[in-house]
Amino acid sequence: MKLLRHGAPGAERPGLLHSDGTIRDLTGIVPDISGAVLSDVGLSALRGIDAGKLPVVDAATRLGPCVAGTGKFICIGLNYADHAAESGMAVPPEPVIFMKATSAICGPNDPIIIPRTSEKTDWEVELAVIIGTKAKYVSEAEALDYVAGYAVANDVSERAFQTERAGQWTKGKSCDNYGQLGPWLVTRDEVADPQSLPMWLKVNGQTMQNGSTKTMVYGVAHVVSYLSQFMTLHPGDVISTGTPPGVGMGQKPPRYLKAGDVVELGIEGLGTQRQDVIADI
Amino acid sequence: MKLLRHGAPGAERPGLLHSDGTIRDLTGIVPDISGAVLSDVGLSALRGIDAGKLPVVDAATRLGPCVAGTGKFICIGLNYADHAAESGMAVPPEPVIFMKATSAICGPNDPIIIPRTSEKTDWEVELAVIIGTKAKYVSEAEALDYVAGYAVANDVSERAFQTERAGQWTKGKSCDNYGQLGPWLVTRDEVADPQSLPMWLKVNGQTMQNGSTKTMVYGVAHVVSYLSQFMTLHPGDVISTGTPPGVGMGQKPPRYLKAGDVVELGIEGLGTQRQDVIADI
Repeated sequence: MKLLRHGAPGAERPGLLHSDGTIRDLTGIVPDISGAVLSDVGLSALRGIDAGKLPVVDAATRLGPCVAGTGKFICIGLNYADHAAESGMAVPPEPVIFMKATSAICGPNDPIIIPRTSEKTDWEVELAVIIGTKAKYVSEAEALDYVAGYAVANDVSERAFQTERAGQWTKGKSCDNYGQLGPWLVTRDEVADPQSLPMWLKVNGQTMQNGSTKTMVYGVAHVVSYLSQFMTLHPGDVISTGTPPGVGMGQKPPRYLKAGDVVELGIEGLGTQRQDVIADI
Repeated sequence: MKLLRHGAPGAERPGLLHSDGTIRDLTGIVPDISGAVLSDVGLSALRGIDAGKLPVVDAATRLGPCVAGTGKFICIGLNYADHAAESGMAVPPEPVIFMKATSAICGPNDPIIIPRTSEKTDWEVELAVIIGTKAKYVSEAEALDYVAGYAVANDVSERAFQTERAGQWTKGKSCDNYGQLGPWLVTRDEVADPQSLPMWLKVNGQTMQNGSTKTMVYGVAHVVSYLSQFMTLHPGDVISTGTPPGVGMGQKPPRYLKAGDVVELGIEGLGTQRQDVIADI
């Protein structure tokens, strides 16, 4: 299934993408795309519904982030060897984790807002993993059982805030609208191999990132297991697994986003995003 | 007012500490200590209630974290000059920020749980600031207007996870039960000067930390204003403002918590916490 949330920011309703290409409304069927709905039992119940009988939603309706109730927005840093190289950093001996503010999460086509003092707003196409079942001390072999599904994420990053403004990356990762998530939460049964997904990102039509999750250093199962050794993962938690090469910081000279730019990105099978870049006035 | 939450984990109800020393139940008066309740309007409405007529709650009832609906648990690192020194770090030229997982938040007297592979679980008494009103690009002069109140926090930290396990502090700060918060959210009208609060922490009765918010490098108003330049702060967000000297890592030799230890901590006017240290079995 391709689950989604549609409607105005903060007032999204649950929905899904039907096999006929229309968006169908799940209002009244589930409270939201969150919590117990994301468990194997919850997803199985949803699969039993005849989606063709659900109300059609106007295709022009805004999409919100594809999951609600996200308590943690965890990111894996430097998780593609060639991206680490372009960042001038070594591949870490174990996963580097940091957090983005959950308040940065927005819909897949919501604008990238450049903060007032930003000069180095950058892009990062990433495979996001959405947790479906509470996970603590889980093994790598069983880790994927705790995953509800996958989505495209843009881990928008301000490089000066991240690395030139006194320690820790959080402040360069947490600005409002710095976390486009969606269009869909694609349930894990529809993703045969999360480590074999082509991914791409364009700025103003020019391809900047063109990679694959094949070159991820620490794969999804390892990352879920690893994180669960440190903290309990809860349904709706999002793990963004790092970006392949081609970010603005890695260009020679570096290239950053400016108002008026258009960013498009996607991952095979998980859909695409399109964002206007605007100033925060 | 001293607002609180009482009851079993995950099923807490709102309450307050009445002037007669009893806990009173706010069930049915407000949905929780969260969201709009934390605004100036919401707190003003609560002040109009005759607390003496509210039901008394058994004094032995467990207290939960004093605020619900926390979207961000932001911490300020190295924010006391003498603590930075004991950590072997320089005072940063601007606030260092990082995040703890919100899933680490627990009640003030809930145990400190030592993760299975932890050998360096440490303590940090901190002044926590709870946001009451949405704040973005606010000035230092107006910053405190956006604060609902203050609370005691224990920013429990695993030093090996934090500094010896590949970049970024998050993984040493986010373990379950690593964020005791409360007993009360003391509304800001009852805290004459947040920069003049004695604070202390004891392990097994021995005083380890004995400081004051007077020696905080970046004060509450500065921190709230500073963070709001990077991201919108929302009602219920918690900012833990750093710890004075005396953490375990700073002892010679370093001293870390072990199962059976008892940690007590408090801040003048904001109440006290008491935690049993237990192993995660």
